Amino acid sequence: MNPNEKAFRLALAAVKQEVDRRLEAFPRGKVRDAEALSPSAGEMMEILREFTLRGGKRFRAAVSLYGYRCFSDRQDDAVWNIAMSMELVQSYLLIHDDVIDEDAVRRGGSTVHCAYEAIHRARFSRREPRHFGVSMAVMCGDLAGALAFEALNRACIEARVRERILAAMTRMLFLVIHGESMDVLSESEENVTEEHVRRIYALKVSAYTLEGPLHMGALLAGAAVEDLERLTRYALPLGEAFQIQDDILGLFGNEEKTGKPLGSDIKAGKRTLLVLKALENAPPGERAFLEARLGNRRLEPGDLERIRGIVRDSGALAYAVALARRLGDEAREALRGARWRAEGLGFLEGAVAFVQDRDY
Amino acid sequence: MNPNEKAFRLALAAVKQEVDRRLEAFPRGKVRDAEALSPSAGEMMEILREFTLRGGKRFRAAVSLYGYRCFSDRQDDAVWNIAMSMELVQSYLLIHDDVIDEDAVRRGGSTVHCAYEAIHRARFSRREPRHFGVSMAVMCGDLAGALAFEALNRACIEARVRERILAAMTRMLFLVIHGESMDVLSESEENVTEEHVRRIYALKVSAYTLEGPLHMGALLAGAAVEDLERLTRYALPLGEAFQIQDDILGLFGNEEKTGKPLGSDIKAGKRTLLVLKALENAPPGERAFLEARLGNRRLEPGDLERIRGIVRDSGALAYAVALARRLGDEAREALRGARWRAEGLGFLEGAVAFVQDRDY
Repeated sequence: MNPNEKAFRLALAAVKQEVDRRLEAFPRGKVRDAEALSPSAGEMMEILREFTLRGGKRFRAAVSLYGYRCFSDRQDDAVWNIAMSMELVQSYLLIHDDVIDEDAVRRGGSTVHCAYEAIHRARFSRREPRHFGVSMAVMCGDLAGALAFEALNRACIEARVRERILAAMTRMLFLVIHGESMDVLSESEENVTEEHVRRIYALKVSAYTLEGPLHMGALLAGAAVEDLERLTRYALPLGEAFQIQDDILGLFGNEEKTGKPLGSDIKAGKRTLLVLKALENAPPGERAFLEARLGNRRLEPGDLERIRGIVRDSGALAYAVALARRLGDEAREALRGARWRAEGLGFLEGAVAFVQDRDY
Repeated sequence: MNPNEKAFRLALAAVKQEVDRRLEAFPRGKVRDAEALSPSAGEMMEILREFTLRGGKRFRAAVSLYGYRCFSDRQDDAVWNIAMSMELVQSYLLIHDDVIDEDAVRRGGSTVHCAYEAIHRARFSRREPRHFGVSMAVMCGDLAGALAFEALNRACIEARVRERILAAMTRMLFLVIHGESMDVLSESEENVTEEHVRRIYALKVSAYTLEGPLHMGALLAGAAVEDLERLTRYALPLGEAFQIQDDILGLFGNEEKTGKPLGSDIKAGKRTLLVLKALENAPPGERAFLEARLGNRRLEPGDLERIRGIVRDSGALAYAVALARRLGDEAREALRGARWRAEGLGFLEGAVAFVQDRDY
């Protein structure tokens, strides 16, 4: 393993430990505040707390911390507020995403809307459990969003900087929400282009998972405009590479390592870059076969093997692998000549190696 | 009409004009930003802009302005950012509420989820229009929430004050979201108490419509802790009175004035204080009749007249009228002895008169 990648993985684990400790404490106070309103309000906060703590690699938290570490070696509690805020935003968006994608499992447990559906079945006889679950999950997500802003606002930050960090936060939300809505639309649209899919990846991953957290950390450390621009040049291709690699692992990876059932994108009908390229280049019969399986929740045994064959034989796999590698190289290139602290740079380079090599 | 009430109505109209002008301009820039991402992103912003501008009395905007005017006569652009932010939060919550309540009409037009459902039917053949509508509305609401924070953050505000205003904003969201979730739960629960219903009113109306905006305006003007506490003592009973009056008008008001079909709370199965009290005090036969009509979307002709009779004869109406009046008086009492600017105080007193007398 690349030494930067090893350092990256160690850093990720260390960040997880610290941010989880804080994510344990901050919402616990909020559970008490909510309990004072009513037992059900306390229960919602507890569901949100458990959901947030249940899992997650804390990738966005780590990215914000190392965006800071590129420019500062100070111990500053505010950076942990940013990190925590990133994870609360993640809960916010995941809870709503799960409603939108009608997913039942997340982070090895029940999604929030399914948890509330089960609560309704166990306790109530009037009204409809499913819509109840969706309603409560929409509100629980909104609650996470409010807490994400609260965590950020509680940080002790100099006035001008606070304003810029909040601006980066609202801009990030603007971009990721539009990316998500474009993604949902693309599932209904007939003609989706590669350019459009990559635009969605840039919004949903580059802007949200990388650029936003990097900028917030860097702004806290007082980074200059050129530094922010360089971080953007790094984030944009790496985010796309990350998602393309994710698509590949979703079809060719090891279920036990990824923790996601193979072919779930196919079953959900997602037009990933991989699928799009296969549809474009496969012979008509193969294309029709693949097209018919998209969005089919009950694939026959052997279907997935044949789909993998189509994606491989059409050249879509080789295309995606090469593109992800090239985009990773572009991200590495963006760092060249940056006079930043070695600790921060090492993490960013490690992230490239991680994306290019990862098998989970 | 009480002279304060007349001044209150004039003030409301003046605020609406100015805040609408700003709500016209701010999201227009955002539409352009979104269009640069994709036509569908631009369309979502345009739907949000139209929804926000389509109607609304701008009550929360006015409340924040006069919270400021209690303590300052300065012309400060920041107060308009707060006002605009209050209206964007309102769009955020209304869009999600409409999904939760499965309502089709809002502000005289289509709700966002229904608008997107119609868009899907017109344009697409794959995927399900209804769930698509809900998904897009969840994201469109989230977008409004992000813009509400952006509008607030863009204001030119001194550092310490900005932090406090944002804290008031996140606290307000915490309270209103919990109030909303308690409200949704209460529709499924068997035993709802009057105390619980009033707690919900305090969170959904007192904290959200009055206390939050008042505090944000007052904080901008540099109000002291005692002033904020007094505003809370004013907001708490008045918000409850407002909602009780709203329940009464929903059953006994003039449809043309309220703009809401009579009995919609009954059809939606809402256990308003009025309904709760009637269920408590009506004779068994009447109670069973009312109970059976709750949540029934297709009432028979004459049902509503009989329900009005039950609410009247059980004493529930007289109880609610007296309670709303008493709570209004409490709010007025909270203002006594306040050495605030007459312009602000006049508005707050006018709001009490408005709530006590309003027929729409």
